[in-house]
Amino acid sequence: MSSSGRRNEPAGAGPAGAERAPRLPLTDEYRRIRGATAGLCEPLAPEDLVVQSMPDASPAKWHLAHTTWFFEEFVLRAAVDGYRPHRDEFRYLFNSYYNSVGPMHRRPQRGLLTRPNLSEVQAYREQVDENVLRILERDSLPPDAREVLVLGLHHEQQHQELLLTDIKHLFACNPLHPAYTKQPPPAPRAAPALSFTGYPGGLVEIGHSGAGFCFDNEQPRHRVHLEPFQLANRAVTNAEYLEFIRGGGYGSPACWLSDGWATVQQEGWERPIYWMPTLEEEFSLTGVRALDPHAPVSHLSYYEADAFARWAGERLPTETEWEIAAAEVACRGNFVEGGHWHPLPAPYPTPGSTAPQPPLQMFGDVWEWTQSPYTSYPGFAPLRGALGEYNGKFMVNQLVLRGGSCATATSHIRATYRNFFNPAARWQFSGLRLARSAQ
Amino acid sequence: MSSSGRRNEPAGAGPAGAERAPRLPLTDEYRRIRGATAGLCEPLAPEDLVVQSMPDASPAKWHLAHTTWFFEEFVLRAAVDGYRPHRDEFRYLFNSYYNSVGPMHRRPQRGLLTRPNLSEVQAYREQVDENVLRILERDSLPPDAREVLVLGLHHEQQHQELLLTDIKHLFACNPLHPAYTKQPPPAPRAAPALSFTGYPGGLVEIGHSGAGFCFDNEQPRHRVHLEPFQLANRAVTNAEYLEFIRGGGYGSPACWLSDGWATVQQEGWERPIYWMPTLEEEFSLTGVRALDPHAPVSHLSYYEADAFARWAGERLPTETEWEIAAAEVACRGNFVEGGHWHPLPAPYPTPGSTAPQPPLQMFGDVWEWTQSPYTSYPGFAPLRGALGEYNGKFMVNQLVLRGGSCATATSHIRATYRNFFNPAARWQFSGLRLARSAQ
Amino acid sequence: MSSSGRRNEPAGAGPAGAERAPRLPLTDEYRRIRGATAGLCEPLAPEDLVVQSMPDASPAKWHLAHTTWFFEEFVLRAAVDGYRPHRDEFRYLFNSYYNSVGPMHRRPQRGLLTRPNLSEVQAYREQVDENVLRILERDSLPPDAREVLVLGLHHEQQHQELLLTDIKHLFACNPLHPAYTKQPPPAPRAAPALSFTGYPGGLVEIGHSGAGFCFDNEQPRHRVHLEPFQLANRAVTNAEYLEFIRGGGYGSPACWLSDGWATVQQEGWERPIYWMPTLEEEFSLTGVRALDPHAPVSHLSYYEADAFARWAGERLPTETEWEIAAAEVACRGNFVEGGHWHPLPAPYPTPGSTAPQPPLQMFGDVWEWTQSPYTSYPGFAPLRGALGEYNGKFMVNQLVLRGGSCATATSHIRATYRNFFNPAARWQFSGLRLARSAQ
Amino acid sequence: MSSSGRRNEPAGAGPAGAERAPRLPLTDEYRRIRGATAGLCEPLAPEDLVVQSMPDASPAKWHLAHTTWFFEEFVLRAAVDGYRPHRDEFRYLFNSYYNSVGPMHRRPQRGLLTRPNLSEVQAYREQVDENVLRILERDSLPPDAREVLVLGLHHEQQHQELLLTDIKHLFACNPLHPAYTKQPPPAPRAAPALSFTGYPGGLVEIGHSGAGFCFDNEQPRHRVHLEPFQLANRAVTNAEYLEFIRGGGYGSPACWLSDGWATVQQEGWERPIYWMPTLEEEFSLTGVRALDPHAPVSHLSYYEADAFARWAGERLPTETEWEIAAAEVACRGNFVEGGHWHPLPAPYPTPGSTAPQPPLQMFGDVWEWTQSPYTSYPGFAPLRGALGEYNGKFMVNQLVLRGGSCATATSHIRATYRNFFNPAARWQFSGLRLARSAQ
Repeated sequence: MSSSGRRNEPAGAGPAGAERAPRLPLTDEYRRIRGATAGLCEPLAPEDLVVQSMPDASPAKWHLAHTTWFFEEFVLRAAVDGYRPHRDEFRYLFNSYYNSVGPMHRRPQRGLLTRPNLSEVQAYREQVDENVLRILERDSLPPDAREVLVLGLHHEQQHQELLLTDIKHLFACNPLHPAYTKQPPPAPRAAPALSFTGYPGGLVEIGHSGAGFCFDNEQPRHRVHLEPFQLANRAVTNAEYLEFIRGGGYGSPACWLSDGWATVQQEGWERPIYWMPTLEEEFSLTGVRALDPHAPVSHLSYYEADAFARWAGERLPTETEWEIAAAEVACRGNFVEGGHWHPLPAPYPTPGSTAPQPPLQMFGDVWEWTQSPYTSYPGFAPLRGALGEYNGKFMVNQLVLRGGSCATATSHIRATYRNFFNPAARWQFSGLRLARSAQ
Repeated sequence: MSSSGRRNEPAGAGPAGAERAPRLPLTDEYRRIRGATAGLCEPLAPEDLVVQSMPDASPAKWHLAHTTWFFEEFVLRAAVDGYRPHRDEFRYLFNSYYNSVGPMHRRPQRGLLTRPNLSEVQAYREQVDENVLRILERDSLPPDAREVLVLGLHHEQQHQELLLTDIKHLFACNPLHPAYTKQPPPAPRAAPALSFTGYPGGLVEIGHSGAGFCFDNEQPRHRVHLEPFQLANRAVTNAEYLEFIRGGGYGSPACWLSDGWATVQQEGWERPIYWMPTLEEEFSLTGVRALDPHAPVSHLSYYEADAFARWAGERLPTETEWEIAAAEVACRGNFVEGGHWHPLPAPYPTPGSTAPQPPLQMFGDVWEWTQSPYTSYPGFAPLRGALGEYNGKFMVNQLVLRGGSCATATSHIRATYRNFFNPAARWQFSGLRLARSAQ
Repeated sequence: MSSSGRRNEPAGAGPAGAERAPRLPLTDEYRRIRGATAGLCEPLAPEDLVVQSMPDASPAKWHLAHTTWFFEEFVLRAAVDGYRPHRDEFRYLFNSYYNSVGPMHRRPQRGLLTRPNLSEVQAYREQVDENVLRILERDSLPPDAREVLVLGLHHEQQHQELLLTDIKHLFACNPLHPAYTKQPPPAPRAAPALSFTGYPGGLVEIGHSGAGFCFDNEQPRHRVHLEPFQLANRAVTNAEYLEFIRGGGYGSPACWLSDGWATVQQEGWERPIYWMPTLEEEFSLTGVRALDPHAPVSHLSYYEADAFARWAGERLPTETEWEIAAAEVACRGNFVEGGHWHPLPAPYPTPGSTAPQPPLQMFGDVWEWTQSPYTSYPGFAPLRGALGEYNGKFMVNQLVLRGGSCATATSHIRATYRNFFNPAARWQFSGLRLARSAQ
Repeated sequence: MSSSGRRNEPAGAGPAGAERAPRLPLTDEYRRIRGATAGLCEPLAPEDLVVQSMPDASPAKWHLAHTTWFFEEFVLRAAVDGYRPHRDEFRYLFNSYYNSVGPMHRRPQRGLLTRPNLSEVQAYREQVDENVLRILERDSLPPDAREVLVLGLHHEQQHQELLLTDIKHLFACNPLHPAYTKQPPPAPRAAPALSFTGYPGGLVEIGHSGAGFCFDNEQPRHRVHLEPFQLANRAVTNAEYLEFIRGGGYGSPACWLSDGWATVQQEGWERPIYWMPTLEEEFSLTGVRALDPHAPVSHLSYYEADAFARWAGERLPTETEWEIAAAEVACRGNFVEGGHWHPLPAPYPTPGSTAPQPPLQMFGDVWEWTQSPYTSYPGFAPLRGALGEYNGKFMVNQLVLRGGSCATATSHIRATYRNFFNPAARWQFSGLRLARSAQ
């Protein structure tokens, strides 16, 4: 692994990079995003939509209903005088975790709700959409409610990604290995060699500021003192991770955090969750396919990402390091609109051209585990009311991931975006990028 | 409770009694029984058919496929030279518990099989039916295979009943309490007062003999020495069970077996599984309905049935006692063909008429827990080959139930029939009839 | 395996057979049995006495206290006006499972009671003994209380055996494999070849009658119809069981009951609980010793005993069969007083002599699993009051074992004695004897 | 709650403050610390020393042996040519979690080790002490080994504290509520009113530097940018926490982190672990005593500490904030040498005197939960070899606590000391101090 000088020119458009579209008027944006959710369900049969493969996952039909509930509960009920809910029981059935709203159906039992069936849920979506659009078109939404509606669209995009990862998990549990879509794998492409870029550190700022949308957990923008560091030019590849496996990584406690090692032992982990025992194929949304040595390794838990980094003699970046590097890079990449449904090898940077320059793949392909526990920024204030439960109450036992994945919507991600999962979670498109402290 | 003299005239047709139809030619019987299974699924949406509400239950779609697999595995593969299975993976996916056939999909994961979807499973049923019927029509089935085919039909009828009780459990888990069918409850009818009939005991014979079909566990017919006993004229009613609840039965360890009491404590049992907390309504296949005080109490575990009997100062019958009494009674009752989907009050016997005489309700309405552990009869020999796993390997930790229920097919039940479940099972139509030792 | 004609001469004294001592006057018997319990604790350190190695087992100190509690609760409180208990909290702490007496310390937490410590428990024993002996010597005990006191002595003997098997389990969990006692293993002795004795069956009687003590579950004596059967001349040996292991028994689902196979898979069973992985040594109360091929296999669960019998093409006897055969045999054997602490090979019968004749080893060495679930005899009536909880409430999910073991007191066992454990229990000295139905 | 100006004079000696003794020569220090461990066991019976009340806790005897193993494994084996271990099996039995040393006895089974018994463990201690002291007296220890020996002494002090908290948990499980020691509670004393002191923040430094001992996780000293903040003058008291309970805190999901609320529901938490249901008494090392309203609330999980702070409209400090404030305060307080075995009310500061000034109780009484997840400092390097497992591998799923407790040795604690536990842990003397961001 070599370490190059710091590169910080703005990155150009890469082969897999989707141009970031300008934000549409809110009515169109609402239609577009709601429609995208329905579109993701098209390849699925009613049976696929109802089943829950593990407590962490939710049925696709539940995602369809819950995202609708969000608009009904937080926009229509709040902004429409005398609003009559589509069906009273849905307040209970499709509340995810908002204790302030009231009691809720138990999460591990979401998969038992064969009723309301798909067509009833579709009717629910249609009626709520009609109501929302009517208000939007009349331009009669108070500014507060308008902000919540925008939040609801970002919320919907989060569930779009979960819908895909939950379906992938469900199909992976099926010995028939069904494909979500029959998309053929892309033409082979070599990823660039691993190298590191240096960053000077110092007193930096992270967090969101300015006009665009962000979640409460990205605020306030604040100062952090940072030591000099280096960051890898791309995500760790399947080939590199295979070396770790073949080198006995899953059998060497010295590589692992104590809780990670306990998990490896207890769960019998021997490879990434969707890799076949041969280590030559992996299950993907397009079915079982050959493992691409150049593509980023994906579906790692934090424990695995951390163990790999330790084994490689490097470490994971902190979220501050990641954000500082990402702030200099255009937010393009292999997102869900690209229709690849899978991470792709990093594009090859062309010196002297406007093609992307390192760090590559900061956005899209795989979420990148950082070593930062998910905590509040200094001065953090959660949203008022029930929506204060959106992010703040999860600030323990989770690690931050950054950058979005091949299942993330293009308009959803940004450099300050903080995703978070518990360290044993493996069903997201989660990989890693190496970092080092400056020598 | 009064005790009358022994009555043993053959019973006449009761209001809820379905005439026992003569057995059809095998081809017709096959069509009829296979068709009945499909008929049971008609009120259900694809979503309802795929979900598994607990490890003990199976998805309806799985029942559809597994019963088909039974004919494919044990009839077509065995009897048809060069038979090409519908799909190789189904041998693994739809094997229930036959280790001799090979490895199998894990039972608690049956509900994850969204694929093959319903139409694929229907195609499977059609193709296997076509193959079976072709052989049957050519009359080319060897006698051994013919016997297995008949076994397969009884097997299918067992799964018809499970399909209904599994759906009932699934719907009961749904806060919307969906109804399987909208059938209105029957007109009220008073059950006769509780009384007991005496039986002299002595050296008796139980078990199946003769020409008709029976399972291996009903054989051989053998002698048992029996002390004199008395048997109740009908099943215990909801009203009687309500007295037990109101009298503090669920809080009195003295009524319970030690394992039963531990289960009550651990599971927080306070009433039968489908009763509402008000004790005035219960969930049924026709939705939530008022509790009928005259109808038999149903969906009891063995622990509850035994505790009730102890509380009432009586006991459960042994399976020998039950069979001796049942041998004198016509096999009529409230079976699945009656379309009640629920137990009915015992019919009122009319002295001097041909109307049913005690013991009433020996067949249909509810399976009756006996105090007999499920063991082999002396000289028991399981079927040869894989089908030896059908019954014999379950002969531990289970109790025998007798008589069939409102979800049992009329042609499926007989006096020697031995059903069995573990003592904590509550999702079958299981009730009880009281017995006493003669004073 | 050969089958011989029926042999039913009374058996003579075998080398390992302890002469059955005549019952002493009650005062002496009380002193003797209470003293024996204390004697069993002599090789143990205070640390050994306090720990509980699994929920099924109890600390030795708890046994010392609970058996004392039994006399205090059921004899002294009942028979002595104004009796002041040794310490009020002991009623709660040392109640085992008598709900009628009141609430109790949770069973799995018995091992947390470091206090009262050993000397306090010894003081408890001494004070209760003093009180009991004072009453006994004054001969002022009402007949009812006297009967309960006798029950208490048999109860104490049951706990003596449990104390030994619980300590054995505890020591087996310790990688140091400590020995309870340093007793050298006996001189090698060959067991006789396996053969079978025929019994005619018919209408027989089992259960206890007459003057001596018995538990309520041995009554009433009653008639049973029995088919002709054959019974093995001795218990199954280690060598025979080794064949089963080497023949792949633990990997062949066809040998196992369904629940047994599930247990094998889940627990990873590959051999009897105390055998070393080499299959050449086993852990015993005298430490690790070479496996004696001629000694009875011991510490089997019912599942293992049943699987072995199935594999051998035979079956386990019913408890009726066992009792009919045992009724003709003197109650002698390798009991705890012999000081072997381990099963011994069956003695070699000498034709024409008064030496023991088959069936050998009916008493002592190992408890023999029967295929009979533990149920009530027809007409069974539990003891009145709290002592009705002694036996009756366990009559589900357990199998009957017969004959006592090398850890049973000589004066405790008889042909009608019914021991019972759940089918997965392995920590008792439990083995098996084969049976067959007559051809 | 009022907020005062910043106070940062060095604190004087308070009534409960133990003068920090100068470090002794290493030989004396070794004798003193090893002797202190033995001293802590004096009030205990052998039974108390062997039992493990939960997987998180260890038996006192195990602490005695493991701390000895540490010296044997890391000092004697490393520094003494041809060292012959006391007993080979101890390497396995008393290894806690050092995978580099080899396999180890499973943690939840430490309580099954009745052997080696107490006297054998004492002999082990004596022999190892003799060996260590001989080397120390000859001054023949290489500098590296000398450092490890010093580490071993700090390690021993950590286990002294655990020994006390583990015994407290064990005794709390005993319905007899035994006292570790009979110490009467101290005379009542009012704690000062709650107030806050402001700190300016900026670019600060935390972490250990200089000559004294520290653990690897306290290094390197590094810069952190800190926003202005305020810190409470003392720990939260029982009276304050009682308000939270009485105000419904344990029933209000809005106060809790999501994982915390799930824990409250699942475990049925309603009050601190050792409080009696009356909320008027608590279990302590001196037995059940009246709850002192002025003493710091103790034995809180992180979830409870965080919920209280949220309910109070404040927050927990970060570890940086805590350390910055603590750096200005003398390291005195209610430590284990004080012999109180329990937290005491904060001393009353006397204006104008040399008596302690706010922040009070920074050291001793209770460990204070910070909101900081336990992570590595930038540039952290674990110790080389097996001792690298000491701290580093636990850096996930844990929160940092600061300041020591009434069970901590005086010479063990310092401002940079980082303790860590998982957020549900309640059996340590863990409380909290409130903080705020500057307005």
